[in-house]
Amino acid sequence: MFKVRIKMENLREIVEVVSTLVTEVKLTVSKDGLDAKAVDPSRVAMLVLHLNQPIFEEFTGEPTEVGVDIDKLREVLRLSKPGDIIELQFDGKRLVAGVGRLTREMAVVDPAGITDPKVPNVSPPARVTVKMDDLRQGIRGSESFTDHVTLSVDPESFTMHSEGDTDRLDLRLPKEALTRIETKEAVKSMYPLDFFAAMVKAITADEATLHVGNEYPLKIEFSMGSGRGEGRYLLAPRVEED
Amino acid sequence: MFKVRIKMENLREIVEVVSTLVTEVKLTVSKDGLDAKAVDPSRVAMLVLHLNQPIFEEFTGEPTEVGVDIDKLREVLRLSKPGDIIELQFDGKRLVAGVGRLTREMAVVDPAGITDPKVPNVSPPARVTVKMDDLRQGIRGSESFTDHVTLSVDPESFTMHSEGDTDRLDLRLPKEALTRIETKEAVKSMYPLDFFAAMVKAITADEATLHVGNEYPLKIEFSMGSGRGEGRYLLAPRVEED
Amino acid sequence: MFKVRIKMENLREIVEVVSTLVTEVKLTVSKDGLDAKAVDPSRVAMLVLHLNQPIFEEFTGEPTEVGVDIDKLREVLRLSKPGDIIELQFDGKRLVAGVGRLTREMAVVDPAGITDPKVPNVSPPARVTVKMDDLRQGIRGSESFTDHVTLSVDPESFTMHSEGDTDRLDLRLPKEALTRIETKEAVKSMYPLDFFAAMVKAITADEATLHVGNEYPLKIEFSMGSGRGEGRYLLAPRVEED
Repeated sequence: MFKVRIKMENLREIVEVVSTLVTEVKLTVSKDGLDAKAVDPSRVAMLVLHLNQPIFEEFTGEPTEVGVDIDKLREVLRLSKPGDIIELQFDGKRLVAGVGRLTREMAVVDPAGITDPKVPNVSPPARVTVKMDDLRQGIRGSESFTDHVTLSVDPESFTMHSEGDTDRLDLRLPKEALTRIETKEAVKSMYPLDFFAAMVKAITADEATLHVGNEYPLKIEFSMGSGRGEGRYLLAPRVEED
Repeated sequence: MFKVRIKMENLREIVEVVSTLVTEVKLTVSKDGLDAKAVDPSRVAMLVLHLNQPIFEEFTGEPTEVGVDIDKLREVLRLSKPGDIIELQFDGKRLVAGVGRLTREMAVVDPAGITDPKVPNVSPPARVTVKMDDLRQGIRGSESFTDHVTLSVDPESFTMHSEGDTDRLDLRLPKEALTRIETKEAVKSMYPLDFFAAMVKAITADEATLHVGNEYPLKIEFSMGSGRGEGRYLLAPRVEED
Repeated sequence: MFKVRIKMENLREIVEVVSTLVTEVKLTVSKDGLDAKAVDPSRVAMLVLHLNQPIFEEFTGEPTEVGVDIDKLREVLRLSKPGDIIELQFDGKRLVAGVGRLTREMAVVDPAGITDPKVPNVSPPARVTVKMDDLRQGIRGSESFTDHVTLSVDPESFTMHSEGDTDRLDLRLPKEALTRIETKEAVKSMYPLDFFAAMVKAITADEATLHVGNEYPLKIEFSMGSGRGEGRYLLAPRVEED
C-alpha cells in the first residue's frame, strides 16, 4: 500500500521505456524510489530501471510490488498535460490515479503472473556515448529496407550499418561527434532493428551509452527522470550468416 | 428563396452541432434568423437551435424552409478559412454557396422527407453550469472502457461517473469549480456516452448548462453564434439495471 | 559517373514533380544541369523538365544518364531537413547519397528499361498565368463529387468548372486576378481531375501558366529551382460526351 505523487513527464517516461518490451510490468515502489525489470516475450530484450526517491513529489506507505497494465497508465497520461502532477494510490487491490478533479480507478495485475527476469551481468568491451538524434536519423533511414542493424566501434569511430537486398545505409560518427568513446579493439555485432529502434525512440535523454562487443549482447545505458535515475536495456545479438 | 451572407465560423458551428444527430436537416431561414430541429434516427437525442438575425451579415428574401445535406455544407466549409464570409443563395431548387471566387452549387433535400420532431417540454429539477473543458477531459478518460456515463448533482457538487468491468472514472466538480449550481435534492441519471460525448465535443461555447433529474432526460443548453443564439440538446436516460 | 551536391529543397521539388507521373525516371546529369522526361503508364500525361547548372552546388564528372527509383530518393529526402545539402555520387553501378554523417547506397534502374517519351510540340491558342493557391482551392472543392474538370479561357477570364451528378463548382478568375491572360477566342477543354490535381499539388512555384485550347492537350509551364529551371506538363483532354 502506498500513495505517491509524480510529475506526468516522469510517469510518461517510465511508460514509454517499459512499453517497448511488455504490456504488463511489476513496479516496486518504496521510499527509496521506483524499480522495474522486464523481459520481452521472445526473451530477446530486457530492461532494468531504477529511479531514486526524488522522482516522487511525495511518497507515503510501505515498500510495495504492484503489477500494472501499461495501457491503463497510458490512458491516465492522456488525461493529463505537461506540468501536471499525477497521484497514484494503491490499497493492495486497486490502483487509483488522480489528475486534477479526475479520479481513475483501475484493476491491477497479479505480480505473481509477471515474469521476473534474471538479468545477466553483461560487460561488452567497447562503450560509446551517442546523441539520440543521430541514432534516430539512422534508424529512420533503415526501416524501409532491412530488419537488422550492425553496430561497430573502433578507437576512432562508431558506425551503424544497415543492409538490405539492394540498399545500404551507414551512419559513421567519428570521435569528434561522440561524447565519449572507449575501446581497445574494433568490435562489431548485429541486432534486430525493431527492438533497437523501439528502445532508441523511447529514450527521453539527449544521449545514451552503447556497450558493444563481438557478436555479444548490446547494453544501452541512459539517464531517466532528469538525472534522478537510470535505465538499462539489454538486447541479444543476431548471429550473422556467412 | 433567400440570399444570406454568414461568417464561416458561425456556419461551422451550426454544422458541428447538427451533425452529432443527423446527416440531413431542415433549416428555416428568415429575416429573424435561423431555426433548426433534429432528432436522431434512434430517437434517443434531439436538438433545437435558434440563431437571432445578427447571425447573418446580410439577409434578403422571404422566410424559407430548406433541406440540406450536412456533408455538403462541410465541403463548403473546407473551401473557406476562418474569417471568410460564405454566401448562400437558394432559388427554391438549388443551393449555391459562394466563397471568394468559388461558386459551389449543390442539390437540396426535400424538407417533406425530413422528420420534424415534436420536442417535449423537459424540465429536470437540477441545473449546473459546467466548463466544456472539464467535461471533455472526463469523456476522454471514459471512452476506452465504457459506453455510458452517470451524471449526478447535489447541492454541493456535480459528478460525472463512468464504470466499466474493471475500471472507473470520476470527475467531481465542487461548487467552487462551477459557474452555477441549483438543486434542492440529489439527482442522478445514466446516459449513453456516445451521444453525450458527441454533444459535448460539438459545443463551441466555453460552458454549458446541464439540466439533470432522476432517471430523466438530460437537457443541455448552450450559447451559439457568440451570443447571438442558443442550442438545446435533449438526451434520453438509460435505465440502470440493478 | 558524376558527383553532385544539391540543396534538399531542390531535390525534393524534382521528386515531387516527377512522382506525379512515374515511379522510375531517367535523369540526365551534366555540367549544364539536370534534364528529365517522363510519360505516365496510361500515356495521358507527360513531363519535361530542365534545370540549369546553378541547380547543383557542385558538379564533377561527365554527362551521365542514370535511372532512379523515385521512392528511394524520397527516403533520402526524409533523412534530411530543409537547408541540408545532399551529395549524390554515381559510379556507373550504384547511387550513393550523403546527408551529413549518413551514407545511403541504393540500386539504380537500367535506363534502357525506362520509356523515353517523344514529347509532341503542343501550342494551344490561349495562355493564362494563375496562382497555384487558387487552383488548389478549386481542386479541393471538386474532388468529392467528380473525376474531371473543364478549363475555359476567354479574353476576360479563366474558369475552372467541375460537375458531378448533383453538384457543381466554378472557380472564375477575372482578368484582374490573373498575372497574365492572352487569347483571341474563347476556348474550353475537359481534363482528368486526378492528373490535373497531382500536377497542381506538385508545383512549388507560386504561379503557373496554363496553355488551353479546344478539346486540345493542356500545357502547364512552371518555374523550378527558384528560377534556375523550368518544368512543363502535358495532359491529354477528355472528350466530352454530348
